[in-house]
Formats: sequence, C-alpha cells, structure tokens
Amino acid sequence: MADDELRALLDRHDLAGVQGWLDAHPPHVIADELARLDGTAAGVPFRLLEKDRALAVFEELEPIDQQAILAGLRDQAFRDLVEGMDPDDRARMLREAPAKVAKRVLAGLSAHERQMTAALLGYPAGSVGQIMTPEAVALPRHLTAGQALQAVRDKGAQVETVYTLPVVDAGRCLIGVTGLRDIVLSSPDRPVVELVDADVPRVSATDPAEQAARLMRETNTLALPVVDSEDRLLGLLTIDDAVEVIEAADTEDVTRQAASGPWPGHYMAVSVWRLARSRAPWLVLLIVASVLTVNVLQVFEATLEAVTALALFIPLLVGTGGNAGAQAATSAVRAIAVGELRGSDLPAVIWREARVGLLLGAVLALVGLTVGTVLVGGDIAVVVGLSLVAICAWAATVGATMPLLAKRLRIDPAVVSAPMVTTLVDATGLIIYFLIAHAVLNL
Amino acid sequence: MADDELRALLDRHDLAGVQGWLDAHPPHVIADELARLDGTAAGVPFRLLEKDRALAVFEELEPIDQQAILAGLRDQAFRDLVEGMDPDDRARMLREAPAKVAKRVLAGLSAHERQMTAALLGYPAGSVGQIMTPEAVALPRHLTAGQALQAVRDKGAQVETVYTLPVVDAGRCLIGVTGLRDIVLSSPDRPVVELVDADVPRVSATDPAEQAARLMRETNTLALPVVDSEDRLLGLLTIDDAVEVIEAADTEDVTRQAASGPWPGHYMAVSVWRLARSRAPWLVLLIVASVLTVNVLQVFEATLEAVTALALFIPLLVGTGGNAGAQAATSAVRAIAVGELRGSDLPAVIWREARVGLLLGAVLALVGLTVGTVLVGGDIAVVVGLSLVAICAWAATVGATMPLLAKRLRIDPAVVSAPMVTTLVDATGLIIYFLIAHAVLNL
Repeated sequence: MADDELRALLDRHDLAGVQGWLDAHPPHVIADELARLDGTAAGVPFRLLEKDRALAVFEELEPIDQQAILAGLRDQAFRDLVEGMDPDDRARMLREAPAKVAKRVLAGLSAHERQMTAALLGYPAGSVGQIMTPEAVALPRHLTAGQALQAVRDKGAQVETVYTLPVVDAGRCLIGVTGLRDIVLSSPDRPVVELVDADVPRVSATDPAEQAARLMRETNTLALPVVDSEDRLLGLLTIDDAVEVIEAADTEDVTRQAASGPWPGHYMAVSVWRLARSRAPWLVLLIVASVLTVNVLQVFEATLEAVTALALFIPLLVGTGGNAGAQAATSAVRAIAVGELRGSDLPAVIWREARVGLLLGAVLALVGLTVGTVLVGGDIAVVVGLSLVAICAWAATVGATMPLLAKRLRIDPAVVSAPMVTTLVDATGLIIYFLIAHAVLNL
Repeated sequence: MADDELRALLDRHDLAGVQGWLDAHPPHVIADELARLDGTAAGVPFRLLEKDRALAVFEELEPIDQQAILAGLRDQAFRDLVEGMDPDDRARMLREAPAKVAKRVLAGLSAHERQMTAALLGYPAGSVGQIMTPEAVALPRHLTAGQALQAVRDKGAQVETVYTLPVVDAGRCLIGVTGLRDIVLSSPDRPVVELVDADVPRVSATDPAEQAARLMRETNTLALPVVDSEDRLLGLLTIDDAVEVIEAADTEDVTRQAASGPWPGHYMAVSVWRLARSRAPWLVLLIVASVLTVNVLQVFEATLEAVTALALFIPLLVGTGGNAGAQAATSAVRAIAVGELRGSDLPAVIWREARVGLLLGAVLALVGLTVGTVLVGGDIAVVVGLSLVAICAWAATVGATMPLLAKRLRIDPAVVSAPMVTTLVDATGLIIYFLIAHAVLNL
C-alpha cells in the first residue's frame, strides 16, 4: 500500500526514495498520504516537493490537514529534524516554499520564531525573508480608495503596518504599493491602481537584508514589498527592522575593522571570556603573520649591527605605514558598504590611492627629515624621509586595494581589517626601508 | 524720532545700542518701527528680542509685515549679515526663536535651505532643529477621531508625513502623538486624546540629531515630535532623516577610527587633494607622537647594540600591542555610540579589559615563545613571551579607557582612533619590552 511505502521510506530516512515516490504520484494522492502522517513527519515530503507541486498538494488538503502541515513546519521538532540531515538533503529541504504556504507558516510568530522558521522556507541566513513581516493589508487591484480604506479598517488591527499597502492581482502577484496617505487623501471612488507609487522597488525574500535595508534608506520608503521568485507577495520589510539591520551591519563592520569579531549582546553583559574569544582568533592570525617582520629583520641583521641607529626608526616607520594603510582600507571598506565602490573600480582606486599616498608621504617626509636630522643626523634622516614617501604610497595603495580584491573574490570586504593591512604593510615597509638604507648609505 | 534712532543704530552696527533701544520700547512701538525697515534689516532687531517679546512683537505686526520679516530671516543676505558679526553678537542673534516664527520661517524650504536657515533660529549645528520638518498635521486636543481624519484630509497634502499626528493644546503645547492608523481604526466619535501613544518620547530642537535618531531606532517610531524649550510643537523628526543621520554618524565614526576625517560626498568623486587633506592632519600628528618611540629606543640604544636580536621583535611586539589596543578602542567607541557604555562605567571597563588583555596576552605569549625559541633561542624568547602578556593587558586597558575618558571630557569618543591608541601603546610597549629584557637578561 502506498501509505506504508511513504512512511517506511521516511522511517528509513531514505530521502532519495521519498523524492522518487513523490515524483511518481499525482498531487491528490500525495495529499491523501500526507494527511495520514503527523505534521512534523508530513513536513519532510512536503518540503521536498517542487514549488508548483507543493502548492497543488497544499490546495488538495482539507483545511484541518493544511493547519497540521503549517504547524509542523513551524515546529521546533521539524527544525531539529532538518538540522540533523546531511547537507545535500538539507539543501533540498530549503528551496523556496510557495508564497501562500510561507506567509501562513510565518504569520503570528514572534520576530525570533520567525527568524528561526524562515530558514526552513528557503530564505537563507541574513536574508530579507528572515526579518520581513508576513502580515500586510494586500489590496486587490479592482478596489477603489474607499473600499481600500474599509479593507484597512477591517484587517488593519492584526498587521504590523497599514501605512504601506501592497496592491496585488488575482494570483496574489504584486502590482505595486500605495500608501494609506494616498488612500485617505484621494476621492473614495478612485481606483487604487491609479494610486500605485511607481518609485517603490520590490525585494526578493532571498535578497541580503543589508542590501535591501540600504535600498530603503536611499529611496526613503517606510516599507518595501517582499516577493518570491514569481513576484507573489510574501510580506513587507519595514523601516524599523531595516534600521536595526543597518546598525547591526555597521557594528559588525566597525568591530571587523579592528580585527575583532562581533560579540553577542550588550558590551557590559558579555563575559570576559566571550570578549577575549571574539578577539583572539584575529590576534593570533596577525601575530603569526607578523613573524614575517622578524624574518625580514633577520635578513638585515648584519645591517642593523653595523648601523644600530637604523633600528631607532623602525616603530615610527612601520607605525606610520600602518596608519596610512588603515586610513585607506577603512575608507574603501566604508565606500563599498554604502555602495559607492564596486569591484570594477579597482584600477581607478589604485591610481587614486597611489597619488594620495605620495602626497601624504611627501608631507610626512618633511617631518621625518627634520626629526632624523635633529636626533641622528643627515644620512639616516634622508633614508627615513625617502622611506616615508615610498611606504605611504605603498600602504595607501595596498590598503584600498585589499577590500576591493576581497569583494571581487566574494569575501566580505570588512574582513580586510586595519590591523590586517597594518601587519601586511609592516613587513613590506621594512624591506623598503632597508633597501633604501643600503642604496643611500652604500652598505 | 524713534525710527531714525533705530535705523541709525543699525547703520552704525551698534548692536548693544539696538538692544538698549529694544529694551526701552513696548512691543507695539517696536512692531511699528520694524514695519518701516526692509525684511533683512528688520531681522536683526527682531532676532535680538528676547523670545516672549519677539512673539508679542510678531503678533502686533500686520500679516504683510510678518511675511517681510519671515522672508528676511530666510534670506541669504541675512545669513551673511549674521556670519559677519563678531561672535558675541552672533551668539545673541542665535538664541531660540519663538516656535510660531520658527515653523513659518522653515516652512516650504528645501532640506538644504532649511539646514542653512535653522542655525539662525537658534538650532546649533548637528541639532534636531536643522533636520526636522516644520510641517505636521497638529490635532487640537478637543477633536474626535472622525474630525481628525477630516483634518488630515484637509491639510495632509502639504505636509511630509501624516502617519504621526501630534496632539496639541490651545497654546500649541504638545500633549503627545497619535498615528493615522489609530485614527482610521478607531470609531469616529472617540476623542483623539484617548488615542495618544504614551510611549513616543519628545525631543528638543536643540538636542543632538544623532542622539534623537538613535532614540527613534530604539523606540521603533516613524517620527518624533520636536518641541521648543516651552514644549511648543515645532515639527517632526522623520525616520528617513534619522536613518540618514545614523548612517552619516557611523561613516564619520568609521573613518575617525582610522584617524581620517570624513570627506564630503562620494568617494570616487572627491579629488585626490581633498582625500589627502582629510587624512594628513592625523597622520602628521601621529608621526610627531611616534617620535616618542625613537626617543625610547635611543634611551635603550646601548642595549640594542649589545643584543641586536632584541631589535628583531620590535615590529612584532608594537604591532601586536597596537592590534590589541585597536580592538579594545573600537569596541568601546562603538559601545558608546550605540548607548551601551557611559562615562561612569570607566572603572568596570578598566577591570574588564585588563582581564581580557591578560587572557589574550597569555595566548599570544605561547606563539611568541615558540617563534622566539625557534628563531633566536631561549632567553630572548622568554622576554618576548612575557612582554606580550604585559603589552596586551596594557594595550587593551588603555584602548578601552581612552574613549571613555574622552567622553568624560566631553570630547567625541570616536576621536580616539585605533591609530592614536596604537601610537600611544607603541612607545609604552617598547619601555615594557626593554625593562623586561633588562630584568630577564640581567643587563
């Protein structure tokens, strides 16, 4: 019997077999079999169904069985089940769910539960789908403004916001959005389709939340409509959630810039251990990288023994190079974060920063020359001055280039922290310094 | 004659004399005299009036003369006039203007013009007054929800937002705010005072905009009511402006963290000169500060000559100390920016960061010991290991302390940049290193 077959496959955790069984049966048969399973168990075959078929099966189910499936998908037990699967099976479970099902699964959940559950509906970590509200007053396209106002009065109490009102067609595909303001201010018999604001973009539930949040900022909207891959309305991304996303992203970027991981929660509430753990990995990586400076200096140890005075300027030179590199890296990371720089700007950025670095180096060389002359005298002062020009130009170029390279390699540019640039520039800066010393001092 | 007297004082730029004249005459006489001057000239005595008297004079003016004064206050010529005054006189001109006048001066201006003009109404740079919108549908307290909806229909087309509706008393003092949603959803005969949302805080036009913007984020409000020092409604701070303030403040903090000034406009559009200028002042300051490291090394020059191997670890040690300090400083700056740290937390933070630094130092010392042993052997490896523990604890403590000290001294904590901490820690780190070297190596 068919039901025994499906249950047996599920009991054996044979997901490939379940998939085969699903492919071999029509929606009404699948619906019958799912109705016999409990919600959590039924969730597995249901989420393995390809999207259109999932919707067809869902429509075949009795309302009470639909509820069981929805409850199952929301369930902690189902989340645990999916967590425990091997990655391939899990990926198959996490394909985009039908909009109708997704909205009903997410409805009524708290923000935290919604975030936990959204992953099971095919919205990846950090995506719009995880923070959108599934509740909105969707206006059918044939309504007038007066009818729309009545719809807001009827359904407005249950939703998070009534200020942004999506307008949808008969298939729940998004036509556009209008605002309660336009509904209230226009004459009651005006069709809502005439009030649609063409400037409000739509975002996909699988889009990165940070990108959508910055888009909201740029377009000055209070809420963006969220759609699935077939343009069906899933919900709204509201400005308060967007602001939180922007602030969290900025905090992460800021702490990353200092080569520290973000820590969870309030600074004063986090344990000393946790704080140390958020910083230790980068520090260890950086100290290992800076062993390179020891190697470089070993190469030039004879030079150091001959002219000990050269050692005096090592912290000043590597420090200044590090500072110049950190400035350039931070500028570039921020410009990328707020959307001012793209990967393709790389050559232009190299050319810009090389010139900025040369200018800065020239200014600093004057300081270096003066200090060097006063403290140790002529020759070494010239070495220090020339080194500052070369190191600054090099540091600024490297600092700005690395975040852009990271972006091209699809790594988060904010990972290129100021300390990382500093450490990298330290070793190369020393090489520059000693090569210039050899040339100028005829060593 | 009185009018000749006032005009003569103005022509002589004798503002103390104008002030004396104003003090000596009743509002209706002052109004008569102002009406004879052109708007720009009338602006000077008008803005010198103490607030209550300014309102009384304004009320005495004919509508056409009120318009002339309002236009005068908005005028570029008046701005230039005030700019050119000496600081004491200017400060007197920039005291808070009456709410009624301020709202009408700002109405209809573009965001940029509004920002330029707000300063003349007594709202300092970076204050809420410079970015608020003066337009709002203010609901008199005696209205019902139905009447309020009608008020929105009547006046809503001219204002920036109708979603947040301030409720005011007969003197235009703010009672609280309600939302269009509540108005639409409640029965038409319900009084609006019953719909006031007690959770929405009010901000003063002179409050810092960043603080107000972060408050909006925390309270998830779409707009905050802005009041003057007598609680009279001035306008609304809307979320889109608040988000822009937060993003700009974060950009400034981020660039400051790398010891770079913010640059105006788009990264790719700013000239190389301008970019260099935004970075040069800090770099110069830092290189001058790092001359201290040269001095420290000069003190220990004999030690360096005796044990050149000690020089090999200088970049590694100062680099690691700098990184640990930068992490702590950035954490503290961000925690202060998002409101998690106050000046009074200083002792607790010192205690936390000293322990975090010791933990990190212990981990890094293992790396240092290993590397030191492999590359140069036992004794110096011990010096490097011990120095790492001491330098990390010191750097983390100093790094987290400096932004808090800055806050206590009412300096922007973000000024305490990672490079500044790094540079400071460099010199002290070297002292720690050589003291430990002397002790361990019996020099």
